[in-house]
Amino acid sequence: MSREDKVILAHGAGGRLSHELVEEIFVKYFGNPVLARLDDAAVLHIMQHATRNTKGTRGTKDATRNTSTDFRIALTTDSYTISPLFFPGGDIGKLAVCGTVNDLSMSGARPLYLTAAFILEEGLPLETLERVVASMAETARQTEVEIVCGDTKVVNRGGADQLFINTAGVGVVPPRVDISGSNARPGDVVLLSGPVGDHGMAIMTRREGIEFTSPLESDCAPLNGLVQAMLAASPEIHCLRDPTRGGLAATLNELATQSGVGIEVDEEAIPVREAVRGACELLGLDPLYVANEGKLVAVVPPHAAEAVLAAMRAHPYGREATVIGRVVDEHPGRVVLCTALGARRILDMLVGEQLPRIC
Amino acid sequence: MSREDKVILAHGAGGRLSHELVEEIFVKYFGNPVLARLDDAAVLHIMQHATRNTKGTRGTKDATRNTSTDFRIALTTDSYTISPLFFPGGDIGKLAVCGTVNDLSMSGARPLYLTAAFILEEGLPLETLERVVASMAETARQTEVEIVCGDTKVVNRGGADQLFINTAGVGVVPPRVDISGSNARPGDVVLLSGPVGDHGMAIMTRREGIEFTSPLESDCAPLNGLVQAMLAASPEIHCLRDPTRGGLAATLNELATQSGVGIEVDEEAIPVREAVRGACELLGLDPLYVANEGKLVAVVPPHAAEAVLAAMRAHPYGREATVIGRVVDEHPGRVVLCTALGARRILDMLVGEQLPRIC
Repeated sequence: MSREDKVILAHGAGGRLSHELVEEIFVKYFGNPVLARLDDAAVLHIMQHATRNTKGTRGTKDATRNTSTDFRIALTTDSYTISPLFFPGGDIGKLAVCGTVNDLSMSGARPLYLTAAFILEEGLPLETLERVVASMAETARQTEVEIVCGDTKVVNRGGADQLFINTAGVGVVPPRVDISGSNARPGDVVLLSGPVGDHGMAIMTRREGIEFTSPLESDCAPLNGLVQAMLAASPEIHCLRDPTRGGLAATLNELATQSGVGIEVDEEAIPVREAVRGACELLGLDPLYVANEGKLVAVVPPHAAEAVLAAMRAHPYGREATVIGRVVDEHPGRVVLCTALGARRILDMLVGEQLPRIC
Repeated sequence: MSREDKVILAHGAGGRLSHELVEEIFVKYFGNPVLARLDDAAVLHIMQHATRNTKGTRGTKDATRNTSTDFRIALTTDSYTISPLFFPGGDIGKLAVCGTVNDLSMSGARPLYLTAAFILEEGLPLETLERVVASMAETARQTEVEIVCGDTKVVNRGGADQLFINTAGVGVVPPRVDISGSNARPGDVVLLSGPVGDHGMAIMTRREGIEFTSPLESDCAPLNGLVQAMLAASPEIHCLRDPTRGGLAATLNELATQSGVGIEVDEEAIPVREAVRGACELLGLDPLYVANEGKLVAVVPPHAAEAVLAAMRAHPYGREATVIGRVVDEHPGRVVLCTALGARRILDMLVGEQLPRIC
């Protein structure tokens, strides 16, 4: 909190200030080994608690001995404050289901159950709420997750902007899967599931009122099916992360920092749609810092890379998957971008705020 | 949504309009048997998913056969938008931990893990955030739950009022415990853990600037220890619910409706502190409709009532526990209040809004 004594928009942008806030307030006070991993979802050995009786003392272990070490759940939460509520390719409801399903998926978990909590501004048309809820329900159905509990709070007019949603999610982590942002090892291959920048630029151009001949659409999509296909190809995936706020640059920096390794990526290998590139140039933005809502980065050992890449390409949400770089021994904690002209520059985390309320 | 086409404050008050919103939008679209129970927490047989392999097909059942039918988790969520952030007896952080711990406890679960998601208004002093987070951490420590994952969103100034928190929670439901709002049976005894109205009146008098010689304090407290002591006395508890928004009246009406039974309560048996009664008279409020954050209602079979009541009275948060009524065959779905003068009147659910942003 060195330079700021008030919350500024950049604290929520997924860049350096967001990480400082997490480290200097949340990890400081809530500190525990699970939270400190800073993964998209917490992975919990919950069966160890199954043998306690109602007095809180441990009972016999026999009943659960076979499964207690293997059975793990994943738990995650995200609030959604995106503006506008409806955008090309999605809406806050679809996003609230996909975003949390994706965070669970990034631990390798199979998402099962979601919670849904709404903060509503007095005066919100009920028809708007109903459209959002219908979209959440439809996305949940397609994604095979169930919304099993919820909450509604109403705040006075001006106390919130229309509608905020929080979804928390629970999934089951398959045996032998061990995925974490801290598992990247030198020699690993870095895969990206498709072009970057679609979500952020769809929101941005919509907000700015910019029109293109081919309108930009958010890539908002549930990635659980893609991840399950990848794990079926090889359970040896080391890291998975979806590059949302802060874009691909933030995700790669997080993985490099958490794993204490260097990452090199080839600028030319990173796919960016023509329309996204054009909109970025027009607005002076770098697509590597723009949010995505239906893409993932995977770090895999070299012997598994081909099988995982093939599985990605065979899935509708990974058709344009490609190798974008590698994990190296050098410059631990740093991401280096190798440009088309053979130059190398550090790809840093975003320092300021590129676009508020993107998710 | 018969009479309203916009969200009004009463949609969040825990009364009749809140229930209409849940039934006519959330249950309609999200509809599944777990959600439709409308309990404070969803109880899930999650082990049934443990034997699926990464391809999503079922593997052998042998490893989990012994435990899969018994092992259940509870899942719940609540957003907190209380104003002011700090109040006599607590703050939004303590409330966000206690509220979710209590919702888990009302399913009989032992709370284990919480998520914490923050929506921050641009300009919020970081010192305020830090005080709230420190309070959450301290309450979690006392309650023996871990905050294992989180999220932070920042919205532009005026887009939210200071600070909202969502906590979701996961707990483990002990074997043989079967608690639900739909389990009340005629003949059951209705217990209340202590005086009602403290939380709501502490907030209300603070907001209105009313001062009393003995200041009112919120009863905000974690009830997991109390519930565990009650279950140790008898696992046969039928219903548990904490009378938050809408007060004791809403809770009793919910139980009567969900179980399809009548409930009779004795007005004189319901404890209300003198200061709360005085403040209610001054402001024209009925304490039976005022929110609590550290009380519970238990419905237990007659043969277990004495043991459960003794366990409550032996616990710091249940010292003033008492029998307030009984479950009857007559007037299913209705709560009848028997007054000191021998009259009987229907204790209905709150129709309008008594007090916004109470939690």
